[in-house]
Amino acid sequence: MNDTYKVFAGRPVQDLAQEVCRVLGTDVGRAEIFTFSNDNTFVRILDSVRECDVFVLHTSTPPVDQNLMETLIMIDALRRASARRITAVLPYYPYVRSDKKDQPRVPITARLVADLLTTAGADRVVTMDLTAAQIQGFFRIPVDHLTALPILCDYFAAKKLKHPVVVAPDAGSAKWASRYAERLGAPLVLLDKRRLGNSGEVSIANVVGEVQDAEAIVFDDEIDRASSVAEAARVLLDHGAREVYAGCTHGVLSGPAVERIAASPLKEVVVTNTIPIPPAKRIPKITVLSVADLLAQAIRGVHEGASLSPLFR
Amino acid sequence: MNDTYKVFAGRPVQDLAQEVCRVLGTDVGRAEIFTFSNDNTFVRILDSVRECDVFVLHTSTPPVDQNLMETLIMIDALRRASARRITAVLPYYPYVRSDKKDQPRVPITARLVADLLTTAGADRVVTMDLTAAQIQGFFRIPVDHLTALPILCDYFAAKKLKHPVVVAPDAGSAKWASRYAERLGAPLVLLDKRRLGNSGEVSIANVVGEVQDAEAIVFDDEIDRASSVAEAARVLLDHGAREVYAGCTHGVLSGPAVERIAASPLKEVVVTNTIPIPPAKRIPKITVLSVADLLAQAIRGVHEGASLSPLFR
Amino acid sequence: MNDTYKVFAGRPVQDLAQEVCRVLGTDVGRAEIFTFSNDNTFVRILDSVRECDVFVLHTSTPPVDQNLMETLIMIDALRRASARRITAVLPYYPYVRSDKKDQPRVPITARLVADLLTTAGADRVVTMDLTAAQIQGFFRIPVDHLTALPILCDYFAAKKLKHPVVVAPDAGSAKWASRYAERLGAPLVLLDKRRLGNSGEVSIANVVGEVQDAEAIVFDDEIDRASSVAEAARVLLDHGAREVYAGCTHGVLSGPAVERIAASPLKEVVVTNTIPIPPAKRIPKITVLSVADLLAQAIRGVHEGASLSPLFR
Amino acid sequence: MNDTYKVFAGRPVQDLAQEVCRVLGTDVGRAEIFTFSNDNTFVRILDSVRECDVFVLHTSTPPVDQNLMETLIMIDALRRASARRITAVLPYYPYVRSDKKDQPRVPITARLVADLLTTAGADRVVTMDLTAAQIQGFFRIPVDHLTALPILCDYFAAKKLKHPVVVAPDAGSAKWASRYAERLGAPLVLLDKRRLGNSGEVSIANVVGEVQDAEAIVFDDEIDRASSVAEAARVLLDHGAREVYAGCTHGVLSGPAVERIAASPLKEVVVTNTIPIPPAKRIPKITVLSVADLLAQAIRGVHEGASLSPLFR
Amino acid sequence: MNDTYKVFAGRPVQDLAQEVCRVLGTDVGRAEIFTFSNDNTFVRILDSVRECDVFVLHTSTPPVDQNLMETLIMIDALRRASARRITAVLPYYPYVRSDKKDQPRVPITARLVADLLTTAGADRVVTMDLTAAQIQGFFRIPVDHLTALPILCDYFAAKKLKHPVVVAPDAGSAKWASRYAERLGAPLVLLDKRRLGNSGEVSIANVVGEVQDAEAIVFDDEIDRASSVAEAARVLLDHGAREVYAGCTHGVLSGPAVERIAASPLKEVVVTNTIPIPPAKRIPKITVLSVADLLAQAIRGVHEGASLSPLFR
Amino acid sequence: MNDTYKVFAGRPVQDLAQEVCRVLGTDVGRAEIFTFSNDNTFVRILDSVRECDVFVLHTSTPPVDQNLMETLIMIDALRRASARRITAVLPYYPYVRSDKKDQPRVPITARLVADLLTTAGADRVVTMDLTAAQIQGFFRIPVDHLTALPILCDYFAAKKLKHPVVVAPDAGSAKWASRYAERLGAPLVLLDKRRLGNSGEVSIANVVGEVQDAEAIVFDDEIDRASSVAEAARVLLDHGAREVYAGCTHGVLSGPAVERIAASPLKEVVVTNTIPIPPAKRIPKITVLSVADLLAQAIRGVHEGASLSPLFR
Repeated sequence: MNDTYKVFAGRPVQDLAQEVCRVLGTDVGRAEIFTFSNDNTFVRILDSVRECDVFVLHTSTPPVDQNLMETLIMIDALRRASARRITAVLPYYPYVRSDKKDQPRVPITARLVADLLTTAGADRVVTMDLTAAQIQGFFRIPVDHLTALPILCDYFAAKKLKHPVVVAPDAGSAKWASRYAERLGAPLVLLDKRRLGNSGEVSIANVVGEVQDAEAIVFDDEIDRASSVAEAARVLLDHGAREVYAGCTHGVLSGPAVERIAASPLKEVVVTNTIPIPPAKRIPKITVLSVADLLAQAIRGVHEGASLSPLFR
Repeated sequence: MNDTYKVFAGRPVQDLAQEVCRVLGTDVGRAEIFTFSNDNTFVRILDSVRECDVFVLHTSTPPVDQNLMETLIMIDALRRASARRITAVLPYYPYVRSDKKDQPRVPITARLVADLLTTAGADRVVTMDLTAAQIQGFFRIPVDHLTALPILCDYFAAKKLKHPVVVAPDAGSAKWASRYAERLGAPLVLLDKRRLGNSGEVSIANVVGEVQDAEAIVFDDEIDRASSVAEAARVLLDHGAREVYAGCTHGVLSGPAVERIAASPLKEVVVTNTIPIPPAKRIPKITVLSVADLLAQAIRGVHEGASLSPLFR
Repeated sequence: MNDTYKVFAGRPVQDLAQEVCRVLGTDVGRAEIFTFSNDNTFVRILDSVRECDVFVLHTSTPPVDQNLMETLIMIDALRRASARRITAVLPYYPYVRSDKKDQPRVPITARLVADLLTTAGADRVVTMDLTAAQIQGFFRIPVDHLTALPILCDYFAAKKLKHPVVVAPDAGSAKWASRYAERLGAPLVLLDKRRLGNSGEVSIANVVGEVQDAEAIVFDDEIDRASSVAEAARVLLDHGAREVYAGCTHGVLSGPAVERIAASPLKEVVVTNTIPIPPAKRIPKITVLSVADLLAQAIRGVHEGASLSPLFR
Repeated sequence: MNDTYKVFAGRPVQDLAQEVCRVLGTDVGRAEIFTFSNDNTFVRILDSVRECDVFVLHTSTPPVDQNLMETLIMIDALRRASARRITAVLPYYPYVRSDKKDQPRVPITARLVADLLTTAGADRVVTMDLTAAQIQGFFRIPVDHLTALPILCDYFAAKKLKHPVVVAPDAGSAKWASRYAERLGAPLVLLDKRRLGNSGEVSIANVVGEVQDAEAIVFDDEIDRASSVAEAARVLLDHGAREVYAGCTHGVLSGPAVERIAASPLKEVVVTNTIPIPPAKRIPKITVLSVADLLAQAIRGVHEGASLSPLFR
Repeated sequence: MNDTYKVFAGRPVQDLAQEVCRVLGTDVGRAEIFTFSNDNTFVRILDSVRECDVFVLHTSTPPVDQNLMETLIMIDALRRASARRITAVLPYYPYVRSDKKDQPRVPITARLVADLLTTAGADRVVTMDLTAAQIQGFFRIPVDHLTALPILCDYFAAKKLKHPVVVAPDAGSAKWASRYAERLGAPLVLLDKRRLGNSGEVSIANVVGEVQDAEAIVFDDEIDRASSVAEAARVLLDHGAREVYAGCTHGVLSGPAVERIAASPLKEVVVTNTIPIPPAKRIPKITVLSVADLLAQAIRGVHEGASLSPLFR
Repeated sequence: MNDTYKVFAGRPVQDLAQEVCRVLGTDVGRAEIFTFSNDNTFVRILDSVRECDVFVLHTSTPPVDQNLMETLIMIDALRRASARRITAVLPYYPYVRSDKKDQPRVPITARLVADLLTTAGADRVVTMDLTAAQIQGFFRIPVDHLTALPILCDYFAAKKLKHPVVVAPDAGSAKWASRYAERLGAPLVLLDKRRLGNSGEVSIANVVGEVQDAEAIVFDDEIDRASSVAEAARVLLDHGAREVYAGCTHGVLSGPAVERIAASPLKEVVVTNTIPIPPAKRIPKITVLSVADLLAQAIRGVHEGASLSPLFR
């Protein structure tokens, strides 16, 4: 039987794939992927994959749906080309925030995505820092759920801050932030937000905990429009924090995010490259750490059947 | 076509079923359920259910696995007896806490339960106050996720406490508690727990927020062994709280829970009857509110195809 | 049981939906659909659909993948909102041309789309003029396959052309064109294309059949970039045709299509509105016929359980 | 690829597992299995099983449903831990007697169990002496159906009885007993039972065949409450049998079984250890033969892809 | 919604269908079914079935596989034609005897047939007198398992035989025969067959029980080649029986069966029309009872959602 | 793990299997296949196949349904016997022409067959020259779609005809014929058929293209009753063709086909052995080319995980 493996990559993650494959000592699998003028995506796998252990590296980044369909189409092509096993490696999971019905008649798109991946033919999934770890349970197939927590914590620990406190930007992130607080040995602070009247507007009602003279680090799974983190920075400084950092795994940075960060009193925003950060967004305040080494170890472990639990420490 | 519906109930929820059916103006469906001396569960449905819209009321309470299998066996019998549609009504969802892989090589039993219910033949599920709302996404079939939040908040609002604060007993419950805080218009306080060294022991490191002279209400989805809530009461009183209440939907009250509550400085513990509370556990400090009316409305709404969204307000 | 039906429509087909619902004497179902700044699509169904017979009208038009995901997300939301039955009405089927493996390691995306629709929760599909009628067999659920053939033929018959011939623009369209030829009682002509050397370029090698002094009508299922139809017009006129028309169901009209048509010797290009044709593309040479009446009849037939076979005549 | 295999065992079959693994020359896989005070079962697999060929040894014994759920939860944990293949080895199959609808509106729990095992993730099943061999057909996955017939027959053959006759305790066991009769070269006798009036009571109406001066051996698949076998012994002695033995694969021995056997005129009851027989039940009259060697051979055969047919002779 | 039902019938059961529909007061649904010269079966349903409750009456009779495929193809056509529900009514179930793996590497074709029916689109099944009632458990969909026992017993009871005994032709039929014995209030007798040496030949070793001067009725589920029943007649007469009858539900009567019956000392062989008995096989000794009334009641009950349990008494 | 493979063959393809296995240097797997007198097919696999890579060679030939069921039963037996992977090798696909709903309420039997094969347990399929390549999309499992085009073209090229033209016998075959025309470098001609009035009769209305003095080769996927090809020959000769050949992959040759070919002015009819051609049909005018070498290469490639794309050139 064919004992080799191949890593194929979607269009937006070619750089990440190169970095991952360099660690693995292999080449990115060859595939032809393009969009016809009628906006249909076409995929042709150029290397034979019969009986191969295949990894499809992709991520969720705009155009989000095109990238998701590209993932599904690649998987379909690989399955019909008789790959032995197909692992979707999606460091930023598509529609990760649509994970529950919190109002009537809305979808649970993150579950839909799980079903679409399985239907297309994925045999297993590797992903990172899901907003809710329960999303693993949206799958019947095995999921390896990696975390950038050690990468981010090591980075902040190396700063040797005097009085670091870890800040959860809202109640929903408290659990998330508490894991970082525990690892950094820092106190936890919670920003308590409230809806104002019927308008749907939200504002920070309260800083629950003590930030006087502290270096506050706001931790979350992702930074999207950066409004929450920018407002948090202002409120924390108002309450006496010395300086404010932000750290997250997924730098979505959509819409006005980069401008907001630039204009905010945030000292530094640390993200990883689970989503490609184009040069235009790489302003000095934004630090991008790489997860390529982590993904490479996961791919090797999955292929060789070695335990991945060391990666979770 | 048969336009009637029938409600069948497992052994431990016969009282609740009577209460629900009284609201609905119907009788509990007749079924013979017993355990053979070889410990096998036997079910025989006594009423014809051909083409009926059938509801199976059950819940998770010890013996937990026997009750789950009883639910599955009832569904199997109803499906093979040609019921048109089967809705499992499980106010306390089995294995609700096993909802993610937070360490290597553990199961996600809450997802397994979802698959078992679907495999047995459930067409839809009604449940209440899941620890993580994401569990809805463990199902492909529709889930109606009810909440006892209005019932509990109305009860506490009627007390007209002077300075109520809502307390999340740990970071993982912060989101949960914040919904109660918002509805009661009370500030949120968070108990920050930390693991001590390598021993795995956990203790409350910090009261994040202000409780001086307040009436603290610790809200959570369930109270199991009551160690967490009893310790919270002591810490909150130490930090100046005037009195401490606890409220939750699911009164699991396992092991030493009732003794602990009796011995603790808690003023009152308010639960609902999603799990049957036997007389022996109904000590004066424990108040049990009924969800029968809520379940009855949900059943009627599901049967008649009416919107259930008013129930979620 | 709820005996009503509701028609919901995706963003690009709001006009078509209005037209269809006018015929049906009903209103388009209310839904909130928008794209977040992170490019995620959000859907909320505003009308209760419990136990309703629901139709989701959508089509494949750029952004193709976003529109497909929007369809899937709408279906997911409707299924979880307890719709009794969900029919996807997709007059132009997504990825209709990717229907076979004609080279190694390519996907069969049209089959993938069928599986995605079924996975999301579609109970049945209504579509129109599939390139290959075999695509019906990509589904296990029932498919109603409508055709615009009578609409197009009636339009051309009303012109009372003297010597009409029907032209298949290539061998793969011969079967398609022959059905139009038979209905119009006109001879069939075939353009025989050949690949030139190894370059992959294709050119019309031969006009198989007689076009001298005839009014040639080139029929196909869709016109995409219009290169084929424009070249056909030139070759047919070179071979003595008096004038050249083109007719198709699906006016994809991507890339340079409209410019090409304008610049070509084509007298008129007749398409339908299975794909929305924006005003900018509605040049005088392009005639757009409506399929709204046909879709309305199909929806009514499906809902009422009436035979649709009259629609196929 | 990982070419090793591992055997994990549920709590009630630890002894059997030790015995099986001793034959195999391997150790029982390490797993943490316990019950929380809320009666939820927890499983954690301690050895890495990525890409391993895994066997889960369990059986049906009280608490029956807890043991079944433990089996399912172990399988779920192993599947999510990326085991390559999972074989459930269940010498006594759960709910084996609930294999048909013999009255209206009863379940077919043995089929339900088959679906639950498959849903949890079992890839194949090894079991022993099913009441009805048709239960194999409840599975789509391969089933290896072992039998203790040679073990039991060899044991009785070694007694060198003078005039052995094989007795089927009722019509439903006639086929079963006839296989033993044929192997032992002994005549077959049938006890014909009848329901008395409308009371549902059953009594032995007739001994069909000749037992005068014979050593009667009553064979069945299992002995549960032992009422049937004890009554058979009395009737057979009344009809002139010299002595009466009983043999079966599965010693369920529930309720008053052991007392009944002790009090009955049965000379010896021979069972196997497909169900653990605790010391308290091991009275002198009860002989327990081991199936460990048979299970070990089956596991080795399944792992190595060797034919198991020699085991069936 | 469409509240009507339609009964369609395969080619070999047109007569039975006429009889059933006469009882129901309806007409057999119109369908075109024929075999092309390339031996492919073609089906076209001529009546609209959209949203109808449809019954497909067929049975297993030579050419067995063509009739099975015809059933599957009819179901496929009805499903794609949008029937609301499809019930396969198969009085003689295909491959009913292939219900277990009793030797290595054989199929369980009766389970395969269950899966084929479900795959084709059957929503439920009505069948009669399965060799093993466990075959119901081969299906996940509901199965109504009818029996001709009352029809056959009433026929024999009307004969008012003096000393009837019921004979099981082998150990595997003992359970079956015992149900008839109980209903007729007659003693049970068992023919004990043994394999002779290694040749695979089987002969009756023993008549277990008393037949002297009795009217012996050999009951079985089916009579196929009639060798077993003919030999039984001879042995029973040798042992003193006055006369020998045979009764069964399914008159397979393959190969030399009719000749054997004619030549045998059997007084009468009673079968039903679950399988069509052509005139050539209707010799005076063979009596054919009709199950049309029973099937009609079952169809009406299934359609109206009425309890079928009276049919099982 | 077992690294061998085995080829089993159905009854009608024993000769082809011998030829294929000779190329592969292996023996045909041993299996016992026969039909009982009740017309039930029985299969027993005689070689152990545990963990083997198994190929089931069969084809569609009368009795078509028996051969299909034999294929399914063989697959069921192999799956239950624990084969690791099962590939159905079906050079002539069953019901290949029933691939779409071209009139109301007809089945899509070719899709049904795909589902039946998958349900029985096929993991992949190898087939040849499907009428419509879209049938590949009827499967979710991988399909290798081989073609006899090079074999047929090489045969005709070797004739060194002076003015060959390739003729499509009707519009539906134009695409098919055009591939042969392109490979042979010959012009394409199309026979335009029309239905006459309402009678359903079809006749050739027109020869579209030029055949004067040419050697016409009519290419199609199959020749069934030969009426079409025989009529084509007459019409082509009438239009001046010098001589007429016919070539196809599948020699169905049903009903009067061989007589018609003998009586027709066709010079030679070239088919392959995807369907066994019995000696009685092997008249001098009919040439049979072998696909054994092609199938052997495909089987080897599938087993070894080598790219099959060279086979498609």
